[in-house]
Amino acid sequence: MSVVTLGVADLARARRFYEEGLGWRRGNSEAEVAFYQLNGMVLALYPSRSLAADAGIAPEASGFAGITLAYNGRSREEVDVVIAEAEAAGAIVVKRRQEVFWGGYSGYFADLDGHVWEVAFNPFWSLDEAGHVSLAGRG
Amino acid sequence: MSVVTLGVADLARARRFYEEGLGWRRGNSEAEVAFYQLNGMVLALYPSRSLAADAGIAPEASGFAGITLAYNGRSREEVDVVIAEAEAAGAIVVKRRQEVFWGGYSGYFADLDGHVWEVAFNPFWSLDEAGHVSLAGRG
Repeated sequence: MSVVTLGVADLARARRFYEEGLGWRRGNSEAEVAFYQLNGMVLALYPSRSLAADAGIAPEASGFAGITLAYNGRSREEVDVVIAEAEAAGAIVVKRRQEVFWGGYSGYFADLDGHVWEVAFNPFWSLDEAGHVSLAGRG
Repeated sequence: MSVVTLGVADLARARRFYEEGLGWRRGNSEAEVAFYQLNGMVLALYPSRSLAADAGIAPEASGFAGITLAYNGRSREEVDVVIAEAEAAGAIVVKRRQEVFWGGYSGYFADLDGHVWEVAFNPFWSLDEAGHVSLAGRG
């Protein structure tokens, strides 16, 4: 996978949330799109209407998108910090951070356009220096 | 971003599509979830109902999810091949492959659960040996 594109209602508002609220550094951007370099891939913010038109599908939607995104932190404390930052920037916490059944610790927030992010600490997966996730465990 | 999780109606069917249809190699999996190691991150397939329950939100939805995923190939020919593979595996081509306004070549398909993938050749972005995308151009 090379790119994940999130449709947004207001690009300037979404940029403020991700750049000022969560501290993401923007790569190049153009009038109608903003790109962020992640580990080996790119995340893009793009107006929902343009995104639907580009894909050739109807933009109307409601409810759960059926996709969640996740950021894995290095500790329970980092999970707490990231969720607090998101909430301070206007996100809605949809699931309070907690110990979860699979042995980790996580919470969920919805961004200003309703995109659902899990913020998790997973003691069974490894993260390298650059933050790349590997399914291979730490042990 | 560490993980993208796609909600699916039928995990066995979704696994056949991605593993047999598109040739993805599965990492570890458990009864209710399948993980795929991508460049520095993980893609997961997980039943939609469980995913919504895990996030603490209602599973009902309709229409466009407001998120698209993209696979960037190394040539126009690779775009054609990947879209043909997806279609052969049961995907619906929602936008025929074509030269596009930003100077690349792309098409879109919807997988068996309606998740929308763009398959693109972008002459302005670079892909390293491992397929990692960089916003920096080819020079």
